[in-house]
Amino acid sequence: MKKVGIIMGSDSDLPIVRKAAETLRAFGVPYEVHILSAHRTPAEVAEFAGAAGQNGFGVLIAAAGMAAHLAGAVAAHTVLPVIGIPCQSNSFSGLDALLSTVQMPSGIPVATVAINGGVNAALLAIQILALGEAELAQKLMQKRLEDAERIREKNDAVQAEFHQ
Amino acid sequence: MKKVGIIMGSDSDLPIVRKAAETLRAFGVPYEVHILSAHRTPAEVAEFAGAAGQNGFGVLIAAAGMAAHLAGAVAAHTVLPVIGIPCQSNSFSGLDALLSTVQMPSGIPVATVAINGGVNAALLAIQILALGEAELAQKLMQKRLEDAERIREKNDAVQAEFHQ
Amino acid sequence: MKKVGIIMGSDSDLPIVRKAAETLRAFGVPYEVHILSAHRTPAEVAEFAGAAGQNGFGVLIAAAGMAAHLAGAVAAHTVLPVIGIPCQSNSFSGLDALLSTVQMPSGIPVATVAINGGVNAALLAIQILALGEAELAQKLMQKRLEDAERIREKNDAVQAEFHQ
Amino acid sequence: MKKVGIIMGSDSDLPIVRKAAETLRAFGVPYEVHILSAHRTPAEVAEFAGAAGQNGFGVLIAAAGMAAHLAGAVAAHTVLPVIGIPCQSNSFSGLDALLSTVQMPSGIPVATVAINGGVNAALLAIQILALGEAELAQKLMQKRLEDAERIREKNDAVQAEFHQ
Amino acid sequence: MKKVGIIMGSDSDLPIVRKAAETLRAFGVPYEVHILSAHRTPAEVAEFAGAAGQNGFGVLIAAAGMAAHLAGAVAAHTVLPVIGIPCQSNSFSGLDALLSTVQMPSGIPVATVAINGGVNAALLAIQILALGEAELAQKLMQKRLEDAERIREKNDAVQAEFHQ
Amino acid sequence: MKKVGIIMGSDSDLPIVRKAAETLRAFGVPYEVHILSAHRTPAEVAEFAGAAGQNGFGVLIAAAGMAAHLAGAVAAHTVLPVIGIPCQSNSFSGLDALLSTVQMPSGIPVATVAINGGVNAALLAIQILALGEAELAQKLMQKRLEDAERIREKNDAVQAEFHQ
Amino acid sequence: MKKVGIIMGSDSDLPIVRKAAETLRAFGVPYEVHILSAHRTPAEVAEFAGAAGQNGFGVLIAAAGMAAHLAGAVAAHTVLPVIGIPCQSNSFSGLDALLSTVQMPSGIPVATVAINGGVNAALLAIQILALGEAELAQKLMQKRLEDAERIREKNDAVQAEFHQ
Amino acid sequence: MKKVGIIMGSDSDLPIVRKAAETLRAFGVPYEVHILSAHRTPAEVAEFAGAAGQNGFGVLIAAAGMAAHLAGAVAAHTVLPVIGIPCQSNSFSGLDALLSTVQMPSGIPVATVAINGGVNAALLAIQILALGEAELAQKLMQKRLEDAERIREKNDAVQAEFHQ
Repeated sequence: MKKVGIIMGSDSDLPIVRKAAETLRAFGVPYEVHILSAHRTPAEVAEFAGAAGQNGFGVLIAAAGMAAHLAGAVAAHTVLPVIGIPCQSNSFSGLDALLSTVQMPSGIPVATVAINGGVNAALLAIQILALGEAELAQKLMQKRLEDAERIREKNDAVQAEFHQ
Repeated sequence: MKKVGIIMGSDSDLPIVRKAAETLRAFGVPYEVHILSAHRTPAEVAEFAGAAGQNGFGVLIAAAGMAAHLAGAVAAHTVLPVIGIPCQSNSFSGLDALLSTVQMPSGIPVATVAINGGVNAALLAIQILALGEAELAQKLMQKRLEDAERIREKNDAVQAEFHQ
Repeated sequence: MKKVGIIMGSDSDLPIVRKAAETLRAFGVPYEVHILSAHRTPAEVAEFAGAAGQNGFGVLIAAAGMAAHLAGAVAAHTVLPVIGIPCQSNSFSGLDALLSTVQMPSGIPVATVAINGGVNAALLAIQILALGEAELAQKLMQKRLEDAERIREKNDAVQAEFHQ
Repeated sequence: MKKVGIIMGSDSDLPIVRKAAETLRAFGVPYEVHILSAHRTPAEVAEFAGAAGQNGFGVLIAAAGMAAHLAGAVAAHTVLPVIGIPCQSNSFSGLDALLSTVQMPSGIPVATVAINGGVNAALLAIQILALGEAELAQKLMQKRLEDAERIREKNDAVQAEFHQ
Repeated sequence: MKKVGIIMGSDSDLPIVRKAAETLRAFGVPYEVHILSAHRTPAEVAEFAGAAGQNGFGVLIAAAGMAAHLAGAVAAHTVLPVIGIPCQSNSFSGLDALLSTVQMPSGIPVATVAINGGVNAALLAIQILALGEAELAQKLMQKRLEDAERIREKNDAVQAEFHQ
Repeated sequence: MKKVGIIMGSDSDLPIVRKAAETLRAFGVPYEVHILSAHRTPAEVAEFAGAAGQNGFGVLIAAAGMAAHLAGAVAAHTVLPVIGIPCQSNSFSGLDALLSTVQMPSGIPVATVAINGGVNAALLAIQILALGEAELAQKLMQKRLEDAERIREKNDAVQAEFHQ
Repeated sequence: MKKVGIIMGSDSDLPIVRKAAETLRAFGVPYEVHILSAHRTPAEVAEFAGAAGQNGFGVLIAAAGMAAHLAGAVAAHTVLPVIGIPCQSNSFSGLDALLSTVQMPSGIPVATVAINGGVNAALLAIQILALGEAELAQKLMQKRLEDAERIREKNDAVQAEFHQ
Repeated sequence: MKKVGIIMGSDSDLPIVRKAAETLRAFGVPYEVHILSAHRTPAEVAEFAGAAGQNGFGVLIAAAGMAAHLAGAVAAHTVLPVIGIPCQSNSFSGLDALLSTVQMPSGIPVATVAINGGVNAALLAIQILALGEAELAQKLMQKRLEDAERIREKNDAVQAEFHQ
């Protein structure tokens, strides 16, 4: 199976990346985690993204805050699908990272998920890989059923609380 | 090759969808275009999205404006990757559609592209399909080279204008 | 008397829903509380909303955060009045939920109240039911008088503090 | 049947109010249209809203732009359900009117619809009245079917365009 | 000397009002503090504002949060200058209160100060009264000199810290 | 009677200033119009504002767009009441000018009116001057009556249109 | 004298760049204009920026819209001062470009000017170069005097219009 | 070497200014720190900025919050490059300070850095001074290498955590 490459611009984004990594691990999807900065180590970003296809990666996830250029910089060097996670910094609501990640110019898309959306970035990567891996698709459907079941259990609990 | 399903919530989104369709056609990727409304024909959305996998679709694209629920409603009924295009309506800047599309809860991702980003939605779909279609990946790299070449030509033109 | 159905997308919205429920109870209006997710249990949402009229509901209240599609999804399956409560999540100011709830397309209205406005959602539901229940209208007017009286008492207290 | 009172703060809001009025007329719901200003004729607003219940009104709709206080001022004088339409003015995006209309304090709800949402305000009023008028509920369901049918026709047209 | 009337919509705005009151007291300007709600006690607001001129008030200050209608409601009933303080509530940044206070329609101005700007509201009221009270103008100029002096002292302290 | 000084930062703000001037003229209030720039002629701003009191001005109005510093710069040099008009520029919605004008630090208030609010700025100035000019107060009340009358006439016209 | 390098991400930004170029020409500052895209020709951006110092450039100006990464990408490859011009695109107010340009992470500054601020970007570049070129500083002061004079002339014209 | 002048509008901005000062000290760049207020001590601002060139300053940095006029006020009195740091206040997200600082009118640029961007303001000042100081440019390149090295070390650490 192809690997997912998770890149973050700074170790302050680690809590969000960790959720993505845990989700991938739970699905048995191989992944690597890297800290590469669009602005401090741009050559490494270019090199990593440019060689990602040959190195066995199928999807790349990039997490960054503020003027979040990382996902776009990665996308500029590969035709693999690139998923962007806008991270909320402490001096703004995350709108800066969201707009910097999603408003990409025509030609270089970034698949943007919600602010701090580590789990969903991983799930989207798995959905993409699942197109060629029937077993992954099964697991995704299984998770959907479990998520639905959990909602139903919570629904039962709330009935018990409010309607005795 | 798997098909791309493009769904729009209203025919007012047709100009943006048309750009997505033209991009897919240029890459020789089969696609279908549908008008299905998350609010006016929700059962059809559920049915279409729920059966999309069996019906030969690999990726779904949903374009909608205002409280743009379409991409999320589609994503709720499939584990195929779903790409959302937030469309600008005439009574707001498109921020409503962007936030309604991208801020999905954990468990159901939507791969969101820029406001009115029809071309990029199609390119992202092609990138996803290209994981299993080496020829598509080639075409994507070819397009990147052509895009870069066009930038270079424009650069030459601008040199001619400013530095004679 | 017809019942009020309160639906929340996630149990994280329970504190806001609880205020709505307490308000309904104080007015003696029958209600039910459910956890149903527009994205994780969409069929249950459709089923619940579609049958709400026959099941004795007169008004539905839906509380959700982020890309808050719940109220719209409920409204798509019923012609009962649907009240939406946009809930503030921890990665944004609530503007995402507000715009996702209120900016509904023509044809499917959602009666939106303030961000986290649990009490007002319940009062609006009671106002609607009161059109056919003279006694409820009396209670609403009574509450208005009491609210006004409480303001007057606070006014007296503030006079005492500032103008002895 | 109870009447719907439509109030606008200024005749610049007339195009939006007209859509509400046309919708009510199409459903055979009696209505009145008034121009009353929360700031220029506040006593008339108070008087109209305060007497609306006795005067045969069941629902009130208030349309206003900028610091849109009209719906709130109406709601302060009646326990009838009040629907607010935030209108976009020419010096802002309508966010001012939206926030001024929807962010009501606890105790006095305003059922807010989308910016410039004249049709939906009327439909919401009809939904409310339909709780006591079975025939209206029928018409609403009929309209839903017609709206869905129109979407299907557009879907057919788009198929014809894209998939011959 | 004419009095300043400070009105707040809810006792949650008391900390901000207190700063305004302290500022007025420091300048020896007579004032009254009231809790009157545009939505819960609208008749009292109308009565208080309508009679303010005869009752010896020269300027009115209104503090309110969320859909902050109080200043506008006061201004609708008097031709005295009305100063609005938009107060930050806990479910939004204060932008709702700012826009609701400042975006008044032509004909009924509200002199809006910064979010939570209790001190400045009082100073503005004093500046207005000082047009007819030479001694007040003196005190205002004196305060300006003191404020400047305090800045200079802080400047000296910062020099001491950074440039020994 | 004291004069009103209207200052604009650029002649692009002239249309808005003209409305303020016309309003003052209609009330018989003497005024002067100046173009002074906080950034291009700061010394003139300081000189004009600093001498405004001695030169017979009672209120100053400052209109500016973008990073609208003019009102604040004027307010820094006088203890006269200063009214700020945030003007909408062509590259933003006016939010920049509004925040730059209203969010003044403690000590130096600016009485901010709505974006492009030329008429209201003048009316606020007249309200301030009217504290010492009983005749002006009369005219203001007269205008209120006329404005209300005009609303009533429009209300009659709308009745004629909708309720024959 | 060192040259100024002006880079734009797309020829749609040419009108804004032209103003920057005209300003530089008026001051006799040598410059070059390039079209280089952070996403479509990232290697050229890196190469150009990386060699700019040796190639006789003293300051770089980068103009881009949407998720405007260009200035940041340039800044990542040089320690020359980099000036960013956020350009307004047609699907948003320019806030996306502003936040993408200005919210740079610690270590890699971009000197951001106003949205569409072509002239100011050039003036800032000239101010920087003027530190080592006394004659340029003279010209800048001369322009300030002329700008001030033009304001004064407009002030005279406005006096003539309003105060005959 | 020329000095950098750091000015803040209030000592509440000291934590951000301290980071700028520490950065300058680490590079051996002489600097001064001042507290000068655009609104409370405008004459001192004008005097300081107007004489900064003769007094050995090469670049000025101004930090301020809310309606942050300080950088613009400084820029109005000098043709030295002026760097603005928008500071986040406690009643808003910093958007007020950002727009007030960056949206300067044509003719008077302010080089704006990120909200609370003390370090970057200093680095930008050093980049500007480095045009005439080869040794400074060396140090900047050295810091870039060190920053990149630190990213690499963190990358190694993250590898160790995730890929044993």
